[in-house]
Amino acid sequence: MRVWQVDRWGMDALACVERPSVVPGPGEVKLRMLACSLNYRDWLVVRGKYNPSFPLPLVPCSDGVGEIVAVGPGVRHWTVGQRVIGAFAPFWEHGEPERALIRETLGGPLQGTLSEELVLPAGGIVEAPEYLSDAEAATLPCAALTAWSALFTYGGLVPGQTVLVQGSGGVSIFALQFAKAAGCRVIATTSADDKASRLRALGADEVIDYVQTPAWGRRARELAGGRGVDIVIEVGGAQTLDESIQAIRPGGTISLIGILSGAEKALPLTRILMSNIRLQGILVGHRAGLEAMCRFLHTTQLRPVVSDRFTFDQVPEALEHLGAGKHFGKIAIEVWDGR
Amino acid sequence: MRVWQVDRWGMDALACVERPSVVPGPGEVKLRMLACSLNYRDWLVVRGKYNPSFPLPLVPCSDGVGEIVAVGPGVRHWTVGQRVIGAFAPFWEHGEPERALIRETLGGPLQGTLSEELVLPAGGIVEAPEYLSDAEAATLPCAALTAWSALFTYGGLVPGQTVLVQGSGGVSIFALQFAKAAGCRVIATTSADDKASRLRALGADEVIDYVQTPAWGRRARELAGGRGVDIVIEVGGAQTLDESIQAIRPGGTISLIGILSGAEKALPLTRILMSNIRLQGILVGHRAGLEAMCRFLHTTQLRPVVSDRFTFDQVPEALEHLGAGKHFGKIAIEVWDGR
Amino acid sequence: MRVWQVDRWGMDALACVERPSVVPGPGEVKLRMLACSLNYRDWLVVRGKYNPSFPLPLVPCSDGVGEIVAVGPGVRHWTVGQRVIGAFAPFWEHGEPERALIRETLGGPLQGTLSEELVLPAGGIVEAPEYLSDAEAATLPCAALTAWSALFTYGGLVPGQTVLVQGSGGVSIFALQFAKAAGCRVIATTSADDKASRLRALGADEVIDYVQTPAWGRRARELAGGRGVDIVIEVGGAQTLDESIQAIRPGGTISLIGILSGAEKALPLTRILMSNIRLQGILVGHRAGLEAMCRFLHTTQLRPVVSDRFTFDQVPEALEHLGAGKHFGKIAIEVWDGR
Amino acid sequence: MRVWQVDRWGMDALACVERPSVVPGPGEVKLRMLACSLNYRDWLVVRGKYNPSFPLPLVPCSDGVGEIVAVGPGVRHWTVGQRVIGAFAPFWEHGEPERALIRETLGGPLQGTLSEELVLPAGGIVEAPEYLSDAEAATLPCAALTAWSALFTYGGLVPGQTVLVQGSGGVSIFALQFAKAAGCRVIATTSADDKASRLRALGADEVIDYVQTPAWGRRARELAGGRGVDIVIEVGGAQTLDESIQAIRPGGTISLIGILSGAEKALPLTRILMSNIRLQGILVGHRAGLEAMCRFLHTTQLRPVVSDRFTFDQVPEALEHLGAGKHFGKIAIEVWDGR
Repeated sequence: MRVWQVDRWGMDALACVERPSVVPGPGEVKLRMLACSLNYRDWLVVRGKYNPSFPLPLVPCSDGVGEIVAVGPGVRHWTVGQRVIGAFAPFWEHGEPERALIRETLGGPLQGTLSEELVLPAGGIVEAPEYLSDAEAATLPCAALTAWSALFTYGGLVPGQTVLVQGSGGVSIFALQFAKAAGCRVIATTSADDKASRLRALGADEVIDYVQTPAWGRRARELAGGRGVDIVIEVGGAQTLDESIQAIRPGGTISLIGILSGAEKALPLTRILMSNIRLQGILVGHRAGLEAMCRFLHTTQLRPVVSDRFTFDQVPEALEHLGAGKHFGKIAIEVWDGR
Repeated sequence: MRVWQVDRWGMDALACVERPSVVPGPGEVKLRMLACSLNYRDWLVVRGKYNPSFPLPLVPCSDGVGEIVAVGPGVRHWTVGQRVIGAFAPFWEHGEPERALIRETLGGPLQGTLSEELVLPAGGIVEAPEYLSDAEAATLPCAALTAWSALFTYGGLVPGQTVLVQGSGGVSIFALQFAKAAGCRVIATTSADDKASRLRALGADEVIDYVQTPAWGRRARELAGGRGVDIVIEVGGAQTLDESIQAIRPGGTISLIGILSGAEKALPLTRILMSNIRLQGILVGHRAGLEAMCRFLHTTQLRPVVSDRFTFDQVPEALEHLGAGKHFGKIAIEVWDGR
Repeated sequence: MRVWQVDRWGMDALACVERPSVVPGPGEVKLRMLACSLNYRDWLVVRGKYNPSFPLPLVPCSDGVGEIVAVGPGVRHWTVGQRVIGAFAPFWEHGEPERALIRETLGGPLQGTLSEELVLPAGGIVEAPEYLSDAEAATLPCAALTAWSALFTYGGLVPGQTVLVQGSGGVSIFALQFAKAAGCRVIATTSADDKASRLRALGADEVIDYVQTPAWGRRARELAGGRGVDIVIEVGGAQTLDESIQAIRPGGTISLIGILSGAEKALPLTRILMSNIRLQGILVGHRAGLEAMCRFLHTTQLRPVVSDRFTFDQVPEALEHLGAGKHFGKIAIEVWDGR
Repeated sequence: MRVWQVDRWGMDALACVERPSVVPGPGEVKLRMLACSLNYRDWLVVRGKYNPSFPLPLVPCSDGVGEIVAVGPGVRHWTVGQRVIGAFAPFWEHGEPERALIRETLGGPLQGTLSEELVLPAGGIVEAPEYLSDAEAATLPCAALTAWSALFTYGGLVPGQTVLVQGSGGVSIFALQFAKAAGCRVIATTSADDKASRLRALGADEVIDYVQTPAWGRRARELAGGRGVDIVIEVGGAQTLDESIQAIRPGGTISLIGILSGAEKALPLTRILMSNIRLQGILVGHRAGLEAMCRFLHTTQLRPVVSDRFTFDQVPEALEHLGAGKHFGKIAIEVWDGR
């Protein structure tokens, strides 16, 4: 079976190689991969910018959907033929994020999904919603679950509340779709007119151009009735946190999801304290959350936004495309369509 | 000002009489009523079937919307001209239902809304969502808030879950609309074909005819993927609880809201215990819930279903119509439209 | 290895027989049992009064502690030599009580703990708190976890609240100890003077003699400041529920745990509804709860109350003793003390 | 009646002056103050270091207990003679911290408690636990409620969890006492041997000397079983946050309460994100929390630690003593003991 791997850090090291097929051990299932999807993390990992101490050679990428082709000894509930997605942290099944469980994640240090076959622990997979295409289903494990965890598992979003999403990356768009489908109001920020109209088409109630309106935090607060938004989906990090703190209502939650604009930030502690603000780190989520999210998707029949599709041979192009930041929503890799 | 009141129990005692206008005291506001809405409780109250120890004469009815025409001393935040709805238990502002607070409810023992003017504690009113007509806004305090409390305040409904609603009374229809707008699946029961299609039009994913399918609980469980529904909005009471217990999933919540079919019920305690079932009594809700619900309505622009409208002169006819049980959704009384 | 089993229902069928030793399969661990503890359920099971459709022959009893003597393939985290307790429903690891998971419970339909050796799924065991003796540790899986789930997992007990416990069985005494250690007030009911003083010695703030005070519910409400208690640990069922409903405050939770006095009860639905009462069925709890409880025990160093100890040869006597209802707290069976 | 006030910022401006007695308006009560207690905030306020835009002249100090001597029109539930404490933000009765409600706080911008008489909104007072002396009761509104909110209202502390408290100021000591009384484990940091032994005497399970062990965060994590502590009561701010982030477990909560060591901090966003850490600002709390806390105190009979007592004439000395940071726990001012 073929995998894409790096044996040293760098895009130029990314190569498609043959590896021997593996038999699932006790408690494991083996998937034939159908599709994968890229996250910004993958772009960092491959170039050694995420965690250069990950073991090499490494198959990158943590999102994907596959069909069960073999079931190891002692596995209950799963059978050959089911179409499943694998959780980012496949040993974190539920509850609190124990350190040992959240450190083992697909696409580093564990081998990732850019592979024709993948062996996963049976406790770390979830049946893919039937109505989704392979490419759509592949987008769920990281970006969609992160949005779900931020809004529902940790954010306690109540219908009628207001959510602010930043930009048009995967997590932000899922959060927009989820919040709207859950009866909430969404304010989105973006810099480009065409993206603004696509965000509106997806349901955004308000779109703020953060270039034209650098004080977009204050503007968001006004748009939220002067009270402030209930949850911010913070993907920017250092450069955006100040505005997020302007936007949030007292007692609201800033879900810290990404650090696209920087990893260290001088925070105004007084304001956080004086307004009972919650800054909540979100590391994707557990498998139980992934299951709940799939039930929600099944119910609402929401479609993930896949802006670009590539073949398994085009993985380097797909990653470059991601790195260029021109996409809107998710990028999918079709691995196998022989079904 | 005119009120409808009873000075003894019985529909024949219901009379429209003149009462002196009242000045709001400290902490109170005075409303000119614009519209009222009826609940099944009102039909029981007037005939002495609800609580015959309520003091007489009594102005019945607990739902209504009015315009503030005077503000008493010490009132903050409220001004003349605002259009507001009054909470069913106007002293229960939030939190736990303290006995002293939940016993004082509009339409008995407190004077009710079938009145051209009404004085209420300032802590017990909420601004009516602007987009709603007076008749629509009048329906919110009891039925809509009961549905809201059952689903969100006490039920912890998560998007993607499944709710079962019984029949087509006010609470059930609000619960159907709310659950759908919050990204959930709804199974409704009814007995009439025309109601079934109206329920579907409002978003019901499945409708079960409980006459054709007496074991509708088991059927609902099957329709909920064999697992059972997450929340039952139980308005029937004695005659329906057994089927609701069949329908609910282990760990699910039966929200006990009404007792249309009887007030005492031999419950199968073993089953409740063995399946971690929760039976949750719901007494409408607090003012903070009413506010949250109004934010949700404002966001989703849901329209309450008002099946029948009557004038202030037609109050007896409106109550008889309610008692006959032919309505679908809510019955409204238009009190004043001079705005 | 020896087990106690029944091959038909009845105490006279209970026999100690030899069974072949078993090797743990994938995902399983094998324990050498050190001690067991009895629950009222066991007394019902053996005599066919609990669920006569359980498969025979059956090893009864669901509580116990053992030492890991072998670890099956694919098991992570567990090693030979650890002292562990097994969860009542060993496949229910966390979260919602899925039907398939809560139906498989030790001591019926699964083989139980009255056995010199026991094979369990690795996901269904928890390390026993070190400070406890084998007999003490053996008491935790059912009675203690039931009390924990009722108070904390489902009851949301807040320090300073008031809990009512009934009688002096295992669950009630654990609930008394736990609630006190968590900063709460406890009202206990009993009928015997000597038990009253033991309950007080364990921390009960108030003890009501339910023979002398048949209206003990009202009395408990008065003792709870007239407001009512926050949580009732309901072990009686049919005969006690009316008084529990008198005792509970509006918005409070009656945790339905046992049905010692009857399984079907005509409930006053109106009162449940009018006071926002919650009736919450409690079926022991999940493994994650058992872990949290063990951390709490470790922190507080609480000692389970073991009133009587028997040897493995005395199992029938131990069960008869339980059936006679003379115990106070838990009954332990010492299986092996070779350590 | 006499008050201590500043008409410009600075300790030298602090003067005891006569003010006319005030009559309570609608919805208000009037207290004769019995005792006050100081917080670090008061020390900042008086010297203009907290918020120099507070209106002058200002009576500082937000903690105190008084006896109701008059009740304004429209006030329910309160009568002359009751001994009550006033909430820090007396209009924030419950629920979410609305901006308008949390900005009006005693001791700036509202007139504070260093006054022989005080008029407060009836919705902002709570009956003082009977068993406490006036000096003890005076300490509750700010420091104790902050600890309560951090642990229970926002922290969701579960019995058996581990809490880290920093130093020996009022909030830290209340948090220590509360967490122990709620069945939790406490790790305290301090720099002085005598304080260490007092912390142990109050129940601290572990005390770390942060001078001897500059990497006290890592040490706390080890002491918490390698997993990390569940809640940090962060009173230091900029200088301590890094160690707190070392100490906290993945998914744990750092309650940001004070900024004694600095108000702006470069936070390691990646670590917060990668470990699902929650940074929760805590601004004292609402009146409903104060009530719940008083029930807890009544139940546990905990005694606030009052290290120093001053008379009303000694207010400047008391503030200087606070500023010197030599106290352990709370400083009380006895205002009137004529009862």
